[in-house]
Amino acid sequence: MPDTTPSVPAPKDPHLRRLANCIRFLSMDAVQKAKSGHPGMPMGMADIATVLFSEFMKFDSKDPYWYDRDRFLISNGHGSMMLYSLLYLTGYEDMTIDEIENFRQIGSRTAGHPEYHHATGIETTTGPLGQGLANGVGMALAERIMNAKFGDNLSNHYTYVFHGDGCLMEGISQEAIALAGHLKLGKLIYFWDDNSISIDGATSLAESDDHVARFRSANWHVQQIDGHDTDAIRTAIVEAQKVVDRPSMIDCKTIIGFGFPTKAGTQKAHSDAPGEEEIAGARKLLDWSSPPFEIPGDLLEAWRSIGAKGKNERMAWAVRVQTANGEICAEFERRMKGELPHEWRKAIDAAKKELLASEKDLATRQASGTVLNHLAEALPELIGGSADLTPSNNTKAKSQVEIAPGQYAGSYIHYGVREHGMAAVINGIALHGGLIPYGGTFLTFSDYARPAIRLAAMMEIRSIFVMTHDSIGLGEDGPTHQPVEHLSALRAIPGLAVYRPGDPIETAECWEAILDAPRRAALIALSRQPMPLLRKEPGSENLSAKGGYVLLEASGGERQLTIMATGSELHLAVQAREQLQAKGVRTAVVSMPCRLLFEAQSPDYRQQVLGPRSARVAVEAAVQDSWDRYLGFDGRFIGMHSFGASGKIDDVYKKFGITVDAVVKASEEAMAAASA
Amino acid sequence: MPDTTPSVPAPKDPHLRRLANCIRFLSMDAVQKAKSGHPGMPMGMADIATVLFSEFMKFDSKDPYWYDRDRFLISNGHGSMMLYSLLYLTGYEDMTIDEIENFRQIGSRTAGHPEYHHATGIETTTGPLGQGLANGVGMALAERIMNAKFGDNLSNHYTYVFHGDGCLMEGISQEAIALAGHLKLGKLIYFWDDNSISIDGATSLAESDDHVARFRSANWHVQQIDGHDTDAIRTAIVEAQKVVDRPSMIDCKTIIGFGFPTKAGTQKAHSDAPGEEEIAGARKLLDWSSPPFEIPGDLLEAWRSIGAKGKNERMAWAVRVQTANGEICAEFERRMKGELPHEWRKAIDAAKKELLASEKDLATRQASGTVLNHLAEALPELIGGSADLTPSNNTKAKSQVEIAPGQYAGSYIHYGVREHGMAAVINGIALHGGLIPYGGTFLTFSDYARPAIRLAAMMEIRSIFVMTHDSIGLGEDGPTHQPVEHLSALRAIPGLAVYRPGDPIETAECWEAILDAPRRAALIALSRQPMPLLRKEPGSENLSAKGGYVLLEASGGERQLTIMATGSELHLAVQAREQLQAKGVRTAVVSMPCRLLFEAQSPDYRQQVLGPRSARVAVEAAVQDSWDRYLGFDGRFIGMHSFGASGKIDDVYKKFGITVDAVVKASEEAMAAASA
Repeated sequence: MPDTTPSVPAPKDPHLRRLANCIRFLSMDAVQKAKSGHPGMPMGMADIATVLFSEFMKFDSKDPYWYDRDRFLISNGHGSMMLYSLLYLTGYEDMTIDEIENFRQIGSRTAGHPEYHHATGIETTTGPLGQGLANGVGMALAERIMNAKFGDNLSNHYTYVFHGDGCLMEGISQEAIALAGHLKLGKLIYFWDDNSISIDGATSLAESDDHVARFRSANWHVQQIDGHDTDAIRTAIVEAQKVVDRPSMIDCKTIIGFGFPTKAGTQKAHSDAPGEEEIAGARKLLDWSSPPFEIPGDLLEAWRSIGAKGKNERMAWAVRVQTANGEICAEFERRMKGELPHEWRKAIDAAKKELLASEKDLATRQASGTVLNHLAEALPELIGGSADLTPSNNTKAKSQVEIAPGQYAGSYIHYGVREHGMAAVINGIALHGGLIPYGGTFLTFSDYARPAIRLAAMMEIRSIFVMTHDSIGLGEDGPTHQPVEHLSALRAIPGLAVYRPGDPIETAECWEAILDAPRRAALIALSRQPMPLLRKEPGSENLSAKGGYVLLEASGGERQLTIMATGSELHLAVQAREQLQAKGVRTAVVSMPCRLLFEAQSPDYRQQVLGPRSARVAVEAAVQDSWDRYLGFDGRFIGMHSFGASGKIDDVYKKFGITVDAVVKASEEAMAAASA
Repeated sequence: MPDTTPSVPAPKDPHLRRLANCIRFLSMDAVQKAKSGHPGMPMGMADIATVLFSEFMKFDSKDPYWYDRDRFLISNGHGSMMLYSLLYLTGYEDMTIDEIENFRQIGSRTAGHPEYHHATGIETTTGPLGQGLANGVGMALAERIMNAKFGDNLSNHYTYVFHGDGCLMEGISQEAIALAGHLKLGKLIYFWDDNSISIDGATSLAESDDHVARFRSANWHVQQIDGHDTDAIRTAIVEAQKVVDRPSMIDCKTIIGFGFPTKAGTQKAHSDAPGEEEIAGARKLLDWSSPPFEIPGDLLEAWRSIGAKGKNERMAWAVRVQTANGEICAEFERRMKGELPHEWRKAIDAAKKELLASEKDLATRQASGTVLNHLAEALPELIGGSADLTPSNNTKAKSQVEIAPGQYAGSYIHYGVREHGMAAVINGIALHGGLIPYGGTFLTFSDYARPAIRLAAMMEIRSIFVMTHDSIGLGEDGPTHQPVEHLSALRAIPGLAVYRPGDPIETAECWEAILDAPRRAALIALSRQPMPLLRKEPGSENLSAKGGYVLLEASGGERQLTIMATGSELHLAVQAREQLQAKGVRTAVVSMPCRLLFEAQSPDYRQQVLGPRSARVAVEAAVQDSWDRYLGFDGRFIGMHSFGASGKIDDVYKKFGITVDAVVKASEEAMAAASA
């Protein structure tokens, strides 16, 4: 008869096993208490985390924001108890045992998935699978860009990313690893929790991939180890660090829920509370006698030492910052504070001047290109890029040097046709600090990047998404390439500032507003087609930063009608107003470049801008959903009610009835309804 | 001095080269005339298409809908002139030379990117890169599922997919190839237009991947050939067909814009009109004297023969259908007509009966699971699946057998953690015909799948997306997993029917409405948490199919107040109504399970349902954008104004003020505003 008594492999190093068991028991006990959560990952990866933190991770729990710390991310964010356990054990002050006990409860720092800002030491919000992989690429790239600027003395750290099978199944993983391999990010190290289990069951239900060969095909260094063999883990990390011209992936064969007597190695260990019996069995199996949430004194002391061991290195680094060349030091400290250069606004002014001098109509994407030409010179921290649409997005400033494999002294990234990866890499760069990233694609492909855009908004970081060809005005490429629902769909994301400037001056103002907000994710929608200059005497106040404002007040008496518009339709509103005023209708035009900012204004201001509730019209070459709130029951909308069509720009606008005549007619209907 | 006179490699077969040149000149001349488009791909892949169509493709241009035709897709949809050229040359009746001349003009069949429904022979809408790769996987899988049911005699065809470098950079490509390799789809053959050029320049700007190794790591058969060597192309296709237990990728090294004297092989050939001079040079280089849009008689005749050569095979197939076993024949013909089994509605009735008998509250995801148990038995064409959330999504019916590598006699697919790939594969299955696909994930991850969901709506196909855990009611997993903006963002997609049933009976009704609409993409949002049965006496009419209806009319006289709600908030509205009626406020509750369908009702009906414009309240645990149109200026909204939070369901609802008390309070405010 085979012996079916549960057992665990003997440890190579009993002390390390005991340290790892601290993670295991905090995790399983917290999940059990919450009756919810995912114990399998932290229990399976505990040995890896223990070796990494005790022998490699450069950090100091007393200064979580130390710039030159190694970054540690869990892309498999459902294993959040791994991170919370480590933060508590290594002594992050805001991660108390109470927080651990309140895992997944309202108001705690210990949300179901790691939430950036909830506690120090949480480097990014993860949970949607694969995001952390790409965030890690962004951080590792940011580190190299900073290194190229400030040298080894100031910027020289690793980015370590834990991830699971699910992360590797998500398409974003391929975008991330392809870019990292291409860019030769040698200080990026992934640890794959290769446990062969997913929620539906064995991963073999859905995959036959050879991930080792896959990573190698993307120019990665790959090792395969037993993820519970602490000697092997140590050796692998040393080897990975030695490889400087390729990122490294360590394929760690693990047992999910390591320590569970019956659930270990099965999908039952992945999610949900294990049950008292299973936990009792784990205590026996791992020889653990402490009650829940109590860590034996010697082990807590050992972990706290791990959390403190980086102190000297941090102090030495701080000295290096202070003793660096004065200019370098000042620039570095400015960036660390997140302050923009003293005179950066001059770049905006210069851009406006150049735009005002233009003798021809400009597309807002062109205007944006002009603004970026000025900004890139004033803001060395600006890191541009595009998902293979550089000439169309006008994202590359004249002065920007391209970043290339092994060459990081630049400020422009060719992301390839990888919108999702680009957006998540941008998030990683923004999270890393010291840099302000933006990246471009067509607005319609914001859909490809949407999960990462959402996380940027949730994390309240200054990720900037430049989205051109922002309507049916894209013309011949047709419905697949014409955004219709995207503006409304993006405005629906809480906290995301969606800008759609209506002329070159507004474009400059929107860029200024974006850069003025270090804790707000932004998306700027820009036209393919040229449009007239409407703000001929812009003045010094940034009107676009109010979100909405009266571009042209009614003349000849009290306002009777308000036409609201954005972007390439703003000039239609202006032309319609001319006709209406000529007919005696006292008409104002309201430009609304950013609904989010407008809604943050005082009720009085908003009322003043929007004017009387009766007789309102909105014009936008998109669906009306985000306008309904300003229109009431009797307002009229000129815009899209279906997908677009392939054709010349003018033909397409005509086909869908987005014309000056249509605006005039809708305005008259709105007036009639108001007086009815 | 080196000879810099432009040249092209000599053809292996001059006749095939001339046939290929028909594609080249139609493409470049059409792009030139439109002053817009992408000539590079069709010119580069013309030789491959010529060999494929003349010697392998099973089709008959006179019967574009012949079920057992080989499917041909261009995932690199910007090369649409490739497809239009082939359709014209092989004699599809609706693809006239006028259409070719009107390339990219409004109203033509020849949109910038191939649009499904615009012309026969367009198997799917492509353009957003990578989608066609995954559609192809869906079609090849559908073919095998049909084959397992109906045998080689009825279903036995290939799926051929052209794609470019950009398709391979998109993450969805990895999801598609991983799934296809896992499922051993031997009748799927990709042709990679390996031209090393993208819009920004050489692909080496952004990638260093070894795609050959990458495909092999995903269990694909890979060959590498010169894409202009017609002998090599022929041999490679023969070899690919011989491999029956793996999909095949043929890496075709090509010259983009093959035939252009100066732009060939550069990014200048990728997009935009080449210019008269370049075209004149190409005519000289390729020895082509015909004027634009004129194909030499012998070549057109040859192409038309190619388009007709499948006729006999098609006739033989039709005989096999007619002579098949009677039951098989009847079932096959029913599926081809797209009709549901005569008595399928009995499954809905049986499900309702079971749901009415339930003694406990059910989550709508559970109710959906019950409905699927009945439907799966009544509808053998129903093909379910989930992106690794089967136990959470309740997507697997009891009777459904799992599809596995090489085993296609089933009706449930484990898609892995690949939401985007799943959605695009679902589109491919729906496009293929004979099957009705659905697949599940969490609603928040609809973002990952959004580009494919959009295309389903655009193509008007019956792709069904089952999205559970549809609000903050998901609880402990927290903000990353709690959809907030998704309902509004999805409702903004033109033509997408977004259902959110409010009790088990509505769940059954929504499924019925979904299945009743063969040309409408649908997404059904389902709760994690249980909710009470509200429709205790459902009657036979499908009220949910009206989109919105009066669940409870005001009592005691004329209606004063209307509370609208969906899904898990519907019962809050019902409870609030009770309190309000008790206070003497004559209150109606309107359930709005599908805004799209509601908006399609007559104005009278809508007015009757929505009631007086004054005093309206909407309740939905989501942002309000899609409700504004029904609320006017004075209505009140109870829902979300930010991202969610991690915690127990009740705690989370309380934190965000989505409670019966809040609805009552908002109602009273709305009443006050109305009477003010």
